[in-house]
Amino acid sequence: MLLVQKYGGTSVGDPERINRVAQRIALSIKPEHHIVVVVSAMSGETDKLLGYALHFDALPDPREVDMILSSGERVTSALLAIALQTMGYKAISLSGRNAGIYTDSQHTKAHIEYIDTTRINKLLHKGFVVIVAGFQGVNEKGDVTTLGRGGSDLSAVALAGALNADLCEIYTDVEGVFTTDPRIEPNAKKIDKISYDEMLELASMGAKVLLNRSVELAKKLGVKLITRSTFSDNPGTLITKEEDIMEQPIISGIALDKNQARVSMVEVKDQPGIASEIFGKLAEANINVDMIVQTLAYNGRTDLDFTIPKTELELAKNIFKSLDSDSFGKIEYDNDIAKVSIVGVGMKSHTGVASKVFGALAKEHINIMMISTSEIKISVLVDIKYAELSIRSLHRAFELDK
Amino acid sequence: MLLVQKYGGTSVGDPERINRVAQRIALSIKPEHHIVVVVSAMSGETDKLLGYALHFDALPDPREVDMILSSGERVTSALLAIALQTMGYKAISLSGRNAGIYTDSQHTKAHIEYIDTTRINKLLHKGFVVIVAGFQGVNEKGDVTTLGRGGSDLSAVALAGALNADLCEIYTDVEGVFTTDPRIEPNAKKIDKISYDEMLELASMGAKVLLNRSVELAKKLGVKLITRSTFSDNPGTLITKEEDIMEQPIISGIALDKNQARVSMVEVKDQPGIASEIFGKLAEANINVDMIVQTLAYNGRTDLDFTIPKTELELAKNIFKSLDSDSFGKIEYDNDIAKVSIVGVGMKSHTGVASKVFGALAKEHINIMMISTSEIKISVLVDIKYAELSIRSLHRAFELDK
Repeated sequence: MLLVQKYGGTSVGDPERINRVAQRIALSIKPEHHIVVVVSAMSGETDKLLGYALHFDALPDPREVDMILSSGERVTSALLAIALQTMGYKAISLSGRNAGIYTDSQHTKAHIEYIDTTRINKLLHKGFVVIVAGFQGVNEKGDVTTLGRGGSDLSAVALAGALNADLCEIYTDVEGVFTTDPRIEPNAKKIDKISYDEMLELASMGAKVLLNRSVELAKKLGVKLITRSTFSDNPGTLITKEEDIMEQPIISGIALDKNQARVSMVEVKDQPGIASEIFGKLAEANINVDMIVQTLAYNGRTDLDFTIPKTELELAKNIFKSLDSDSFGKIEYDNDIAKVSIVGVGMKSHTGVASKVFGALAKEHINIMMISTSEIKISVLVDIKYAELSIRSLHRAFELDK
Repeated sequence: MLLVQKYGGTSVGDPERINRVAQRIALSIKPEHHIVVVVSAMSGETDKLLGYALHFDALPDPREVDMILSSGERVTSALLAIALQTMGYKAISLSGRNAGIYTDSQHTKAHIEYIDTTRINKLLHKGFVVIVAGFQGVNEKGDVTTLGRGGSDLSAVALAGALNADLCEIYTDVEGVFTTDPRIEPNAKKIDKISYDEMLELASMGAKVLLNRSVELAKKLGVKLITRSTFSDNPGTLITKEEDIMEQPIISGIALDKNQARVSMVEVKDQPGIASEIFGKLAEANINVDMIVQTLAYNGRTDLDFTIPKTELELAKNIFKSLDSDSFGKIEYDNDIAKVSIVGVGMKSHTGVASKVFGALAKEHINIMMISTSEIKISVLVDIKYAELSIRSLHRAFELDK
C-alpha cells in the first residue's frame, strides 16, 4: 500500500502542530505501508516572505519570488522529518527538486511537466517516510519554481499519480466536503463519497476544500483523493471515479456563488454576428461568461442575459461602450444576485429534478431569474436576499439532511 | 575588473538595510565591472530556524538542519536581487547549487570541493549582478549542505578564487582590522594592509572580523581580501600576500586571548614517553594545547607548563586523573591568565623585538609567566588583571598609535 498524505499550512503552523502531524503520520506507519508526505509552509510564513518581496516592488520578478517563497515548504519538510526521527522513525525531507518534480518556467504559476520518482522509490524501499516540500519544482535551467495557489495539493496529487499511490489524503482544518455550507444550513451533512465531476462543480461554486486544478489532475491521473481534518479522526470525504461509487445519490450537494453579476442587454438586434461580437470581446479581455440566456426574437430584436464575475463588471462596461449603439436597446446591470447550484451524478438517470427545484423555490415565493443546466448540475439565479433561503429549501426538498 | 562582495547578517537584517546594501552595490556597477555578491541570512533568521529544529531534538539530523538553515540565505539573495532590479539594474539570485558550489557530504560543516563557474560567468557577461546565497552548496547526492560558522565568508572567498576575481570585499559592521581592540586601547589604529599570516595570528587571538578558515582559503587561492564596514565609506583593511605590502611594519597588531587556562605539572619524571602520554591523551580528547614550556630537568624531575582552552579544563582534569600518579608531583591550574601576542612580519628581519616586549612589561612591573615565539609572533602569558595594561604598554612601546 502506497499512501500520499498532504498537510496544509494551519496543520503545520508551529513546531507543536508539526509534532501532532508527526504523531498522525506515525499511525499510518506499518511494515506493508509506503508513505510519502507533502507539506505546505507554516501558515503565515508565505505571506511574511511575500511581504518582504513587496517591500521593494509591487510586481517583483517572479523568478526571485519563487526563490523566496519556496523556502517555506523546505523548512517545514525538514522540521517534520526531524520530528519523526525523534519519535524513532526513518524519515527524510526532499525539496521539490530532490523529489524529481520538473516544471515549465512559468514562475509563480508553473505546471508540472513530469516527475522522476527514482529517488523517492529508492527511499521508500529503504523504509523511509519521504517528506516532500510542496508547492515547488525545478525548471530545465535548474531554477526553483512554484505552482501557484493550492500548489501543495497539486504536488501531492501529481506525486500520487506518478507513484501510482493507492490513496492521496489531503489534510486540512475542514472535516471534508459537505452537502452545503454548514454555516447556512446547520443540517448539512458530510459527504462520504463524491465523484470528481461533482466535486469540480461544487468546488467552482465555492466549496473551499480543494481547488479545481487539483481535482482535475486527480481525475486525469485516476488518483483517489480523500479530504479530511488533521485535528479529528473522522474519515473525511473520498473523491473518486463515478464507477467507484456504488450508491449514487441523485443530488450530492448544493453550492452557492455570490460573486456573479448579471448583465441584461435588451432588444439586441437578432442578426448573425452580434452575440459573437459581444462574447468575443469579453473573451479577449479574459472575462469569464457563466450563465447565458437568450429569449426568442420578437420584431427582429431579442433579449440577452448573462452573468460575469462581479470583479470584472467595470471592465465589461468599458467594452460595452465600444459596441455599436444601434445594435441593442439598453443594458442593465444587477449586482444583487446569487447563483445556487444543485449537483449530482444521479441526475443523469433521473427525471423530474428540475421540476422539484422549481417547486421547492416556488413554495417559498422565490423568483428564478435565470436557469442553466448541465448533465450533473442545475443552476438557478435568484435575488441575493433569497440565497440562503434557497439553499435551505433545496437542501430539505432533496432530503440531503437524511 | 571582477569584484566579489560579501554582506553579513546585520548588513541585510531587514528590507530597509537590504535596500542600503543595494545602493552600496550600485556604487560599484560600471560597464567594465563584473560583480558577484554573496549574502548571509538576515540576522536572527538562522537562530530562529535552528530554534525550530532544536524544539524536537537537541541533536537534529544534520542533513535536515542544512535543509532548514540554507533557506535563510536563499531568501536574502532573492530580496537583494529584487531591490537591485527595482533600482533599474539587471540582477539575479543564485542558490549555492545554482552557483555551482559543490561540497562534500559533511552536513552543517561541509567543505567546498569545487565550483563550476559556467552559469555565473554567463550571467556576468550578460551584464547581471549575480547574487549568491552564501553558506551553502550541494553534495553529490544533490542535497543542500552548509559550510558551518563563517560559511558565507568562505563562499565569497572560494568564489573569488574560482572566478579569479580582482578583489573580495567582506562587508561587516566593523571598519576593518585594528592594531588592537579599540575598547582596550582607544588609540588603536585601523590597519590599511596586512599579510595573510599576520591576519591568521591576529584572528586566532580574537580579532573577530574574519574566521581563520576564510583567511587560510584566501591565502591558498591568492585572493585579495578587503574587510570593511557596510555602514561607512572608509576603505577598510586589505589582507593580501606579504610581497604586496611595500612597507612592512615590524609590528602590525596586538591580540588578546582570555580564553586559556594554565596547567602546571610539577616534578614530572624526566623520562621518554611521559610528555607524549600526557599530550597524546589530550589530543585524543580533541583538547588543543597552545603554549608549552618545559624547564630543565633537575634531580630527574622537570616542570611542565602549558595552556589549554578554559572550556576544556574539566575534561582535562579527568584525563589527568587517569595518569600514573607516580609520574609527576602535583598539578596546579590557573584560570586567571591572559595571553597577549604581538604580531608582525617585520619581526623576521628585526632583532630586539623580544627585549622590547620584556622592557615594556617590566616597566609596568608585569610578570611574564610564559613566553612562546614564532617567526612573526611573540606571545606572553600574564596575570589576567594586567591584560589591558599589557596591551596598552606594548601598543605605546611599538608606536602603533603613530
